[in-house]
Order: sequence, then structure tokens, then C-alpha cells
Amino acid sequence: MLRTFEIDPWKIVTHKLDKENKRLQESMTSIGNGYMGMRGMFEEDYSADTHSGIYIGGVWYPDKTVVGWWKNGYPKYFGKVINAVNFDKINVWLNDEKLDLATTPIEDFELSLDMQSGILTRKFTVVKHDRRVRFTIQRFVSIAQKQLFDVNYQIENLGETPVTVKLVSEINADVFNEDSNYDEKFWNVKTKAVTADSGYLIAETKPNNFGTPQFTVGMQMTHKTNLKALSSIEEDKRIGNQFQGTLAAKDQAQFEKRVIVVTSRDYDDDATLKAGMTVLSDQVTQATHEQLVAAQQAEWAKRWHKADVQITGDAAAQQGIRFNLFQLFSTFYGEDKRLNIGPKGFTGEKYGGATYWDTEGFALPLYLSLADKKVSENLLEYRYNQLPGAFHNAREQGLKGALYPMVTFNGIENHNEWEITFEEIHRNGTIAYAIYNYTRYTGDETYLKAKGIDVLTAISRFWADRVHWSERKGVYMIHGVTGPNEYENNVNNNWYTNMLAQWTLKYTLASLAKVTERKRDELAVTADEKAHWQDIIDKMYLPEDKELGIFVQNDCFLDKDLQPVTKIPQDQLPINQHWSWDKILRSPYIKQADVLQGIWYFIDRFPESVKKRNFDFYEPLTVHESSLSACVHAILAADLRYEDKAVEMYERTARLDLDNYNNDTVDGLHITSMTGSWLAIVQGFAGMRVQDGRLSFKPFLPKKWTSYRFRVNFRERLIEVQVNAQGTQVKLLKGEPLTIDLDEQPLALKGAD
Amino acid sequence: MLRTFEIDPWKIVTHKLDKENKRLQESMTSIGNGYMGMRGMFEEDYSADTHSGIYIGGVWYPDKTVVGWWKNGYPKYFGKVINAVNFDKINVWLNDEKLDLATTPIEDFELSLDMQSGILTRKFTVVKHDRRVRFTIQRFVSIAQKQLFDVNYQIENLGETPVTVKLVSEINADVFNEDSNYDEKFWNVKTKAVTADSGYLIAETKPNNFGTPQFTVGMQMTHKTNLKALSSIEEDKRIGNQFQGTLAAKDQAQFEKRVIVVTSRDYDDDATLKAGMTVLSDQVTQATHEQLVAAQQAEWAKRWHKADVQITGDAAAQQGIRFNLFQLFSTFYGEDKRLNIGPKGFTGEKYGGATYWDTEGFALPLYLSLADKKVSENLLEYRYNQLPGAFHNAREQGLKGALYPMVTFNGIENHNEWEITFEEIHRNGTIAYAIYNYTRYTGDETYLKAKGIDVLTAISRFWADRVHWSERKGVYMIHGVTGPNEYENNVNNNWYTNMLAQWTLKYTLASLAKVTERKRDELAVTADEKAHWQDIIDKMYLPEDKELGIFVQNDCFLDKDLQPVTKIPQDQLPINQHWSWDKILRSPYIKQADVLQGIWYFIDRFPESVKKRNFDFYEPLTVHESSLSACVHAILAADLRYEDKAVEMYERTARLDLDNYNNDTVDGLHITSMTGSWLAIVQGFAGMRVQDGRLSFKPFLPKKWTSYRFRVNFRERLIEVQVNAQGTQVKLLKGEPLTIDLDEQPLALKGAD
Repeated sequence: MLRTFEIDPWKIVTHKLDKENKRLQESMTSIGNGYMGMRGMFEEDYSADTHSGIYIGGVWYPDKTVVGWWKNGYPKYFGKVINAVNFDKINVWLNDEKLDLATTPIEDFELSLDMQSGILTRKFTVVKHDRRVRFTIQRFVSIAQKQLFDVNYQIENLGETPVTVKLVSEINADVFNEDSNYDEKFWNVKTKAVTADSGYLIAETKPNNFGTPQFTVGMQMTHKTNLKALSSIEEDKRIGNQFQGTLAAKDQAQFEKRVIVVTSRDYDDDATLKAGMTVLSDQVTQATHEQLVAAQQAEWAKRWHKADVQITGDAAAQQGIRFNLFQLFSTFYGEDKRLNIGPKGFTGEKYGGATYWDTEGFALPLYLSLADKKVSENLLEYRYNQLPGAFHNAREQGLKGALYPMVTFNGIENHNEWEITFEEIHRNGTIAYAIYNYTRYTGDETYLKAKGIDVLTAISRFWADRVHWSERKGVYMIHGVTGPNEYENNVNNNWYTNMLAQWTLKYTLASLAKVTERKRDELAVTADEKAHWQDIIDKMYLPEDKELGIFVQNDCFLDKDLQPVTKIPQDQLPINQHWSWDKILRSPYIKQADVLQGIWYFIDRFPESVKKRNFDFYEPLTVHESSLSACVHAILAADLRYEDKAVEMYERTARLDLDNYNNDTVDGLHITSMTGSWLAIVQGFAGMRVQDGRLSFKPFLPKKWTSYRFRVNFRERLIEVQVNAQGTQVKLLKGEPLTIDLDEQPLALKGAD
Repeated sequence: MLRTFEIDPWKIVTHKLDKENKRLQESMTSIGNGYMGMRGMFEEDYSADTHSGIYIGGVWYPDKTVVGWWKNGYPKYFGKVINAVNFDKINVWLNDEKLDLATTPIEDFELSLDMQSGILTRKFTVVKHDRRVRFTIQRFVSIAQKQLFDVNYQIENLGETPVTVKLVSEINADVFNEDSNYDEKFWNVKTKAVTADSGYLIAETKPNNFGTPQFTVGMQMTHKTNLKALSSIEEDKRIGNQFQGTLAAKDQAQFEKRVIVVTSRDYDDDATLKAGMTVLSDQVTQATHEQLVAAQQAEWAKRWHKADVQITGDAAAQQGIRFNLFQLFSTFYGEDKRLNIGPKGFTGEKYGGATYWDTEGFALPLYLSLADKKVSENLLEYRYNQLPGAFHNAREQGLKGALYPMVTFNGIENHNEWEITFEEIHRNGTIAYAIYNYTRYTGDETYLKAKGIDVLTAISRFWADRVHWSERKGVYMIHGVTGPNEYENNVNNNWYTNMLAQWTLKYTLASLAKVTERKRDELAVTADEKAHWQDIIDKMYLPEDKELGIFVQNDCFLDKDLQPVTKIPQDQLPINQHWSWDKILRSPYIKQADVLQGIWYFIDRFPESVKKRNFDFYEPLTVHESSLSACVHAILAADLRYEDKAVEMYERTARLDLDNYNNDTVDGLHITSMTGSWLAIVQGFAGMRVQDGRLSFKPFLPKKWTSYRFRVNFRERLIEVQVNAQGTQVKLLKGEPLTIDLDEQPLALKGAD
């Protein structure tokens, strides 16, 4: 654990420039607006360790797959989030000395991300001899105007002697990617122009050998300042505007840079892109800085109004949940259904790919409750639109139907470890489950009938081809899979996978009965096919141990040396940093919920005794070395009224990045797992469920807390739940009256006054 | 299948320059002397597809491991066989036109490798207008003088007009490796000098980051010719001697290049290396070309005298077995115990690493019978000397004892796919088995007691730590392995592995009882340790199916969809080129003998009914997509008197490279599997066994053949076995009288007359 920021309810703030942990500070002070975002690097060059990263949603490059030994079926390329053309760059000179916080002596440093407004502020005073110059730099990516980036400098001469200030504001396409083959550079400049105080640059991603699209981005910068413009800069891959002025004692310089960022994702050709960029740039130039900031604050306020969770009695927990919500919303707020929730959002370039099953498994439940229904629907449509890719993936493996990818931008699998790529097929089950989850929560079958059924049918066809009939045992089996517990690979009959496959077939058959004749004709599921699905449903092997009364994670699991995690010496944890991979694989230790993931998905269908026996058996074997593990266990522990365990699990998820628990936040934030703390509070502590259209809560109050309060959208209503020592208060803030269950008793909620 | 050479009993000969299959022709015409070797590329530049490769035993470079996703325990580097400094290069100009067989018109081409002498001959006539110039080029690497390479040109002007001939003979260190990261170059020149007609160059492999040794090689060239020396060439990485002359009509030019190649493996420092090189060069300069050739022929004749297999009635089979023996002996004849049998020998640079378990599993039995005992002992000592590396490998996986590597140069694991590197641990069993095999064949326990016991103890300690106790089943198990059948990965309780582990522990305990007190003290196997080993021996789980009466390849195997290979559509074979890896893994198809490999190792210990049931069950599921598969099946089929099956299996191994069965001989020959055809004939058709010190045969004659004859060394004797329509004749050619079994009847062999 490493806590580099101070505890504050609404701010991520530090007063120390921590050079040792600069990248960590950068990850944590990332900002984004769903369309684009950036790490918290400084505007000016920094000569010590730093990772400057700006990312634009949906702009990527297919990097050649690198493996030790090629295996049939491996994807040809691995889609990388690429580091965009740098439009944030501003270098500063004071009396011809270049500012570089790695070496320039400073005082009164502050770095502060205001989560209420999404504005990042940096303050410091440069000190040299009797010279003291105070900088206050604020930046944001606008959620009121997605193409807008704004950075604003106040530079004040606190000393008695005049100081000459020069700023060079750039757009620079000479950017390389850290996490690619050979630190490659991906941008070619197409056109650029620069005036004395503004400029634009249009660049394109370089060609690739895989037939995936190239992307063009256009960036136009304008400036508002009381400094004087000098001659502009134009180089091969870089344009710059230079401004200079001399500040008398106590004098201030104002300097604002506005950049409009457009991409070929939204324009048909370069001409319209350039025209669009110009129009937008002209528009924002009309506004005052105060207007732009006010719009930003207003939009964030709307989001917080629906989504804020208030915790009293635990300031660290309060900060943690807000940080997670802030970063999730900065990554994705559902405006663009071509985008999804990348594992690092706009906070780093590691991993690559935009979409993992985390979205459906962990993020969708949060967006269902915290954002408009359309947002969740967009997440589902994203997969519907990528059906062709999913068909391709199944074909590559010689299978029918659709296999959704482990990692992708465009629906085509990008991952390239056989035990994951080819075998972690349970992901397909979660894609199907998400359709069910959405339909159950919203009560709206429109999506299911219009598009969801296509996805369900395609996935069912995959399962029906992927199972095999074991003559010997007289059952259908699924061999050669990796379950959610990636600490076992290539196992047979993973209970979770088999159960989800069986469930998908059932749900698809039931849903097919609801759709129009025309849709049924289109999908052409034959009677034979249905009969085969039913046969699989009836004869699917679901490993159970009668004696222990548990579901068996996979074949042979119970043959292991089943020692609990508490037997592992502390200095060998986490095992993924201390044990050879083979030792991890044959150990009984579970990375993240596996059987329990399945029980969570259908938490209301299993008797308490079953949930208890499985939890009691598997949780002690679980090392929770995935950021997706703790929340599921928190929810199940809460369900079983293991309150201390639920709180322990919550604490492992709530401040994962803020306290750098996994020691890898330098690479960027764990965006998709940020839903975990919210799920742990709402589905865990507050016991929120939706069953047969009925919303219910069964809350408890963690011992350390004095109260917590959250709001959820539910079928056109906004409901607030507050839990404190006095009990639980549920208010209907918006929408029609509704009866819910609270602690298993009906509670009629009246409309808001 | 692609047959680019003609059928000939002693030659690999073609009269067609097959430009489409140039690399294939090069692989097949490789020559070597155990110390160094080269592919059959041309001396002169060739502007179309070619792969020029010269390799020196034990000279390698640690290339950085490249993987998609790093896993704990992966080796840091992958040892590459590196393409040596090119000392073969000779370019030719005729009247200032550079010879390039990719474009120069030629007639009467012949490429011919004489296996009786190891001399490669190339002939062709350059034709232009009325000009006709005949080339006869012969080369060999000497087995009489391992450091010597010799290439000899006869150039005859067949036409009527004079022709000016120029030859530039080079040593060139500007060589790149095809099969490395980024086509790297590995050689730095340390020193060089050139006179008018000779020169030397000393180069060193570039530094590496892994602390493995750099190698220095020195090459000195001299020339004998009736051409006139011109000015010499000296560049950064290249030296050259130029010779020129004008050939009148019917005139001949003679040109011979001799190169002495020395390495830092045999010299302490550069000064002694250079001095040694000079001495050797001066020595060979004394000899006439005829003397050098005669010495080469004499040495090969000695080898063939002991090892030749004669087959009548099947010329293709005759050529096949000789080719295999020729290439095996070219790769390894046991002179240097620091060397081993690389998978490609000196015929290509793919794979890398020098040593696989193929050596102990497949090559040792052949060398036991065909070469001096010392050769086999050297193979065993190689592993003894690499014990420190094997301890290292086990430690890297957090295990006790020694784990021999899958691939190595120095004992340290180089392979980097987790399912092989970490899991294909059965290799350790074969290292132990080889000690048993050697001792059984030679009847000499000296090695076992002096050194073998160290290896056995270290391996036993590995097994004892690697098993786990399954509380539930009350047995010891080995989870997470890959058996010899690499078409299943990460399986539990592979019968072959468990059986070999159990056997190793037994054999080690029995052997410990035989060694000196002092050795026992040194090994310090405690009473507790022995008791634990005995407990594992007693309670090791060996999966069996009582109903089928077979050993079960691994847990869950019988749950598969067990359709025979005959059900796979022909156009999907080989499955490793047509099926996605996951489909292969969950299929029942077996790449190479697995259970049957274990039965082969202990072929005399299993009742015929057991062998039959297992063969009948597993063989129909086996796709034989490893070059190591067919011979084991040939032997077992012969043992069961399935003569047709034995012959079918033999035919799959005998001409694997000559007929390019696996379509990958372009990369080099399958050296280690070349033992397969000999094993199939001797252990298969002729049924050779050694049991309790007694040699026995039980031959049959394949229907297509009229006879076959082979010789084996056995305990200081040379025995010849001939099988024909009249039956079997066994002769003792050398050594003391001996009683053997022939067709289960004792046969007293008298000494040679």
C-alpha cells in the first residue's frame, strides 16, 4: 500500500511532488470525458521519470501479435490504445530558464483534482535568488463540449524584480507508445498550419497490414492571453505558438489554451473534419473561460446528483467511492455506443483493447442504477453491433455461432494466450447474462426482442457446438476451458461455464418464444436445433459434490491439496508475484470468484444453505488477486450476513488505486473494477436486489461508519436510500409511486413532494 | 510429400536445380563432422531464395525471451544456435560476369552428397553464346581433422575461346540469423589479417545481458591454385583473397580453399587460439588434397563398417536408413562430451537449444549399439555436468532437486511456453531412464555408481517434492503436467509421468544400496527421505481403467469423444495445420506415443495382453504428428506381430526428410528423430531386446523386402544380423563367444574366424 494523496471528501490532493512516484501521481490525477482523456502529466517537459499519455476513445492501432510459439487460431494483431498527438504541451521559460519541475526549485506545490468539477489544478512557486513566481494551472476535458480541452495559466510575479515569461504552446505528433512492440510511433502528419497565436495539425495513424481502419485526428488550438505573440513554430510533426511578456513586481500573466479535438470517427473525410474542427473552434472561442468552467461544473453536478454515495464516519471510504465513480464516468458515460469501458480508460496504454467481459459482468449493474437506461442499452448494442466479429472468432476456432472476444476494439479477438483466448469462453455466458440483467432491471423487453435475441441465438449456437457428448458418462461436457479463476487453465467442466452455457440455452429458448414470427424466421432456429439445445439443457454435466454439498469448480479440483490461504506464508503473497506459474496452477488457490461468480449472478435462485456451503468452502481458498474478486465476495458475505467479511472485502476494492494496493497503478487505473466498491455498498451492505420486477433492500451498517446514502435509478424513478444507526430510510426523489421490499417487508414509496 | 532427390543407395543426388525448393535441397545436402557443419547452400552468392547457414557446435547466443504475456518462472533468454562467420564464401566471375545460379544459364547440373565419404559435389556447365565452362566443386568438413573445411574447384573451359576466371574467396562475419529476434547479427570482429593468398579473421559473439559466455572463433584460410593471386580485400567484417587466370580452350583451373576453424571453447585466450589456429593451418597445408580426401573416406568407412544397415528389395528404404545414419553421425559422434544432439544438427537455426529429451529417449539406444560405449557415456555425462543448471531450474519453480530442461545449451531451461517449460516434466524421467538403459545394455555399473546416482538422487528429490498428497483419494498425485502427447496440456496424473516418477524413486533407492558409503554420505539421503520415497512408490496413483483393461493417459481422458483418427476428414490432416489449438487439446487425438512410450521403455515387463489392449486402444487415436511417434509404434506393433502396422509406421519415419513429409524440412533436418527408422528396424522388425544381460532377437522380414542386414555393438562384440526369406543369420564378427536368444531359443555365437 502506498498512499500518495491526502484524504479529502471531494479532492484527490497532494502537497508533495513525489518524484519517486510521479507516474503513480499521474495515473491518479487522470481526467477524461468519455471522448478523450489524459494522464496527470505536466504540460511542460519533465526530465525525470514520467509518462505523458493522451488517449482518444476508439482510436487504436493493430500491433503485430508477439508470441513465443505460434499456435493455430491466434489473432494476427493486438489492438493497442495509442498515445494520441500531444495537444497539452506547453513549455515555459522564466528569464530564459526552462521550467522543469524535476530540477527547478519550487515551493508550495499542490496538485489537486476536484471530483465535483473534473478540474485538475496544479500550483507551485518557482524560487530562485529573490525571484518568486507563482503558477496556478487548471485543466479539464469538457463534458459539456466533448471535443474541448482547456488549460489555463495564472502566473504571478511575487518578487520585486521583473521576470520575463515565455510560453510555447504546441501540438506535437512525434509521440511514441510505451506499451507496443519496439516503442513504436504511430502518427503521420497530413496537414498543419499555424498563425501567430493559433494553429492546427491533422495527423493520421500509420498504415497497417491487417486491414483495420486508419484514424485521422484534427486538433486546433487557440489562445487567450495578455502576453505577446512571437513568431510561430512549424516543424515536420509539430506546431507551436510562442508568447512572451515581462511581469513587473506583483504582476500577473493570464494564459489560456483551448484545443478542439476531432477525429475521422465522426467525419466522413478530411475536408468535413477540418471544417467541423474550425466551426467548433470558432464556437468555443466565443465563450469566456468562466462560461466554459461553469458548463463543466453544471454537467458534473448533474451526474453527481444521480450517483453520489455519501459515507459518514470514514473519510477514506468516502473519498474512495467518489474517486471510483468519478473515474468510471470520466471513462464512459454512454454517449457513444461505439465505445466501451477500457481496462485503463484514458489513464494509460497498458493492456490494449477497449472491451473486456468486465463491462457486462461488473460495470453494467452500476450503469443500470446510476445512469439513464439508454447508457446500458448502448453497452448492449455495442455487442450486438460486433456480432460479425464474434462470428469470425468462433469460425477461427472451427466452431459455429458467435464467440465474443476476451479483448477487442472491433469485435475480433485480440488476446493471444491460448488458455485465455481460446478457452476463457465463459465470457460468452456473461454477454448473454447482461441481456437478462438489463431486461430484469428495466422490465423492458424491447431490446431483448429486437436485438438481444440475435446475440442469444448466436451464443447458444456456439455452446451447442462447443459441448461434447461423453459416451462413457452419458452427459454433455465442456472440456478445455479456463474459468473466471485464471489460476487454473485448460480445465474440464468448469461448473460456472457449464452452468452459464446451460442457462443461456434455456434463456434463449424462452426468449425465442417471445419474439415476432418474422424475427424467428430470420434466426431460423430449426426444431432439430431446439431439440438438441433442450437435450443439452437436460443432460449438461454440472459437477457437484454431494458429500460436501457444493458445486465443484471443475473436474479434479477436489483432488488437490486443499489448504486454506491462511496457510500460505505472508511473504509469499501475492502468489502471482512469488510463485512460478505452474505452482499457482496446481495449487487450490483461486484468483477471483468462480463458482461464487455464478452464485452471485443468480443470487436469488440458490437456497441460503447452498450459498453458505459454497462460500464457506471457496472463500478460504481465494487469494483475491484480481481486482474483480473482492466485490463479489463482499456481496455474498453480506447476503449471508457475514458482516465483517463483507466489510473486509469492501475495503480491498474501495481504494485499490488510491492506495496502490496491487502496486501497478503506475500503469494506469483499474477502471472496470472501480464498480466493485459501489456494488459492495449497494448490492452488498444495502442488499439491493431486483426479482420479478420488485426492487428490494436489506441493509446493514458497517461498524466503522455512522451512515451511508446512495441513489439509484429504477424504472423512471430516482430512489434514495440512507442507512444509519436509526435504521434505513428510503425516499422516492423522482417518479411514480412504487412498492419495494425493505428488510423483506413491503414498503410503499410515495412520489416526491 | 515432395521428393527432390533421386533414389540411390549411397547418394543424395539430383540433376535439377530446383529453385522453388532451394532451401529444401540445402537442408538435405547438409554436411557436418560433429564439430561444425553447414547447409548445402552454394559457395557463391545466389540472388533467389536461399538460406546460407554454417554452425559450430556449442557456439550460441542467448536471445531475449519473447512472449505475449510474461509468466513467473519463464527463462530470461532463449539460447540460439547462431549462424557462424561465413568461411565457405567464394564468388566467381567469368569474363567479369558474376556467377549466380539464380540467373546464369547452366546445363548438366548435378548436386550429389556421397554418404560413404561425406563429400558434397556440385557440377554444372555455364553456357553463354559459344562459351561453355564446366564447374566441379567438392566440399567436406573433415572427420579426420575436425577443424578443417575443404572446398575444391575444377573449372574447365569446354569452349573454343579463352575465358577469364576470377575467384574471390572470403571469410565474412557480416552474417545475420534468420530465427532470432529482429534478424539480428551476432558477430563482432576482433582481429583479422590478409596476405595475397591467405588470411584469417577472429570474431566474437556480441555481449549479452544474461551473463552467459561470449564465444570467439578464429578462421584461417589458405589456397592452392594454378590461378594468380590479385590484391587482397580487407573490410570491417570481411577479408578476401582474389585469384584470376585466363583459361584457353580445354584448359582447366584448379582451386582449393582450406579453412581451419577454432573456437574459444578449446583455447584459453586469444593468443593461444591464434597460435593453435596457425599451427593447424600449417599442418594441413602440408597435406595434398588427395591425402585429405583419403583420410575423410577412411574415417567414414570405419563408421559404416560398424553401423551400416543393408536393405535389399527396397531402394528407397535403403537410401532412407543410410541418410538418417549419415546425418546423425554428422551431427554427433560423441567426441566432445560438452556437445549433444541438436534438433536440427548443423542443418538449420530453427528451434535453438542444443539438447532435448530426444537424446536420451531416442538417440541413446542407437548410439549404444552403433558407436563405442564411450559415446553413450559421454551423452550421460553431459547431463551429469549440467546438474547445477537442473538444480537452478527446479529452484526457479520453487521445487527441490533437479529438473532437467526441455531445451538448453548449458543446463538452464531455455524454453518458454508454460505448458512445456514448467509442465512437460516427464523429461526428467527419461534422463533417469537413460542411466538404467545404458547400464542394462553395457552391463557396466561404473557410471551409475560414480555419477549416475547423483543425477538419480537429484531427480528423485524433484519428484518427491512435485507430487502432492490427495487427502480425498488417499494417493499421491502429479497435477498440472504435459505428457509426451503435447496435444493435451496441463493435465492431471499423466500415467506415463506418474509411472516414470515412481520408477525413478524405486531405481534410485535400489541404486543407492549399491554405491559406496562415501558416496551415500555425500548424497545424504536421510532415512526419513527414503521412507517418504517409499511411501510415494507405494501410494502413487497410476490411472487405470479396469473395464477396458488399459492404463489411462490422464484424468478425464476417457470422458472425451473417443472417435478414431479414421473419422477425421482427410483434408483436415495433419490436425496441427488445420485445427485451432483448443480443438486439438480437447480432441482425443494423440500427437505421439504417451502411455505407449512408457510401455516401450519397459517392454519386457508388461504381459502381452496388456500391451495389446493399450496398443489397440491408443494407436487408433494417434495422429503421429511428431517425428518421434512412428518408431515407438513400429516397435510395439512388431512386438505384437502386427507386421503390416509395423511396416506402415516404419515408412512414416524412414524418409521423413527425404520426402519432406512434414513440409518443414526447409528449416533443416529432423536430426533427433532420425534414430526412429533404425529403432524400427532393429528393435521393431528384428525385435532386439536386452534383458538381464541377455541379448535377443525375434525378427520378421517386411513383405516388400528381400533381406536386411545390420550390425550392433554389444559388450565388446560386433554382431551382424541378417534376415531374409531363408530366416535369420546371426554372426559374431568381433569379440568373445556369446549366447543370445534368437526367436526365443538360445543361440551360441562363436568368435569370428
